[in-house]
Amino acid sequence: MSETDRTRHTIALIGGTGPEGKGLATRFAIAGHKVIIGSRDPARGIEAATDLNQQLSALAEVDITGDTNENAVSIANIAVVTVPYGGHQATLESLKFMLVDKIVIDAVVPVYFEKGPRPIDVPAGSATEEAAAILPDSKVAGAFHNLSAEILLDPDADLDADVLITGSGVAKEVAIQLASDIKGARAVDSGPLRYSRFVEGITILLIGINSRYKTHTGVTVSGLEQ
Amino acid sequence: MSETDRTRHTIALIGGTGPEGKGLATRFAIAGHKVIIGSRDPARGIEAATDLNQQLSALAEVDITGDTNENAVSIANIAVVTVPYGGHQATLESLKFMLVDKIVIDAVVPVYFEKGPRPIDVPAGSATEEAAAILPDSKVAGAFHNLSAEILLDPDADLDADVLITGSGVAKEVAIQLASDIKGARAVDSGPLRYSRFVEGITILLIGINSRYKTHTGVTVSGLEQ
Repeated sequence: MSETDRTRHTIALIGGTGPEGKGLATRFAIAGHKVIIGSRDPARGIEAATDLNQQLSALAEVDITGDTNENAVSIANIAVVTVPYGGHQATLESLKFMLVDKIVIDAVVPVYFEKGPRPIDVPAGSATEEAAAILPDSKVAGAFHNLSAEILLDPDADLDADVLITGSGVAKEVAIQLASDIKGARAVDSGPLRYSRFVEGITILLIGINSRYKTHTGVTVSGLEQ
Repeated sequence: MSETDRTRHTIALIGGTGPEGKGLATRFAIAGHKVIIGSRDPARGIEAATDLNQQLSALAEVDITGDTNENAVSIANIAVVTVPYGGHQATLESLKFMLVDKIVIDAVVPVYFEKGPRPIDVPAGSATEEAAAILPDSKVAGAFHNLSAEILLDPDADLDADVLITGSGVAKEVAIQLASDIKGARAVDSGPLRYSRFVEGITILLIGINSRYKTHTGVTVSGLEQ
């Protein structure tokens, strides 16, 4: 990360102890951001942070700590939401006042498994729209839904995938910047929050394709010149 | 098309006079299939066929005719559905008995436009699932939703996009074959019909991206080795 043209952010991963949260933590930390892995149970956040520090310390100077979701959010300027969908609503409601005026990037996919991945019906239309409804005083964007956790977790791996970003304003701009911090990722402005349902749905397709083709896939928009 | 390993099909494009129908007709005809462009108004089907024949005759020996949807379906072994969603249910119900035992590949996206593309709520979950419900005695797959009509209409253009195919059995196999007939297209087995909603949704995303980036996009699944 060039010190001149990039901002060093403090990023809380809300519910960040799973593969997607740890994978994003890996890439954000390597890009030079301060990362806090939040969890309901602070011991799990600390364990995940210790694990990543051990893996990454030989590669780069990383700053990854673990804490409660509340503490993580309180010192961060950006929160990335990676809780399982089952905890999405309750977690965001509990953090609502701490997230006022902050940037919240939702990466949650409403999915359950019953003979393959299936969508959970979200009354708001998508997890990201639900987040925006719960957090009217935060700046909410959707991003990072379609990235393979396995590839994110390998700090040297080239992602070769697009990050489809929904939202507007500063939240979108920051999501675009964070996406460009990930090797092999390209940010694609995918429109307002109401398109989040389609981005989230792609993950369900990809989970099925991964299982069918025995690989880790992502999605790329062809025909874009950038 | 090699005569030894490819089957020459007779393909009816139901509601095939729009850009997507004419685009697919272009590619299927160049691949050597007999193509009939169906329309409620046979004069419009004939007009579209005449138009394509004039454009393509210098490039390849193509066999494209126009007719009513009923006549087109009656002589075809494969029907590809490209009606606007508004006519989807009524059109398929009217052709139901003629489509018994035939392969039906649905390419319809339930979308309307109001400050950008928006999804039409389909009680069956997707246009393709709706087709399967209306046509219990046909072999239904979903495919070709995400291909740019503009690129399909240029017979020399490389599509550089995946064809996400939903369904099973012979309908899926034929959709895979037809996809591979399109230059630059790759078929991706995207699972059972219940995943069609996500494939259809991608088109809505792409329409928005096309408008935002002023280009014609498609979608590619990265990380597949084939």
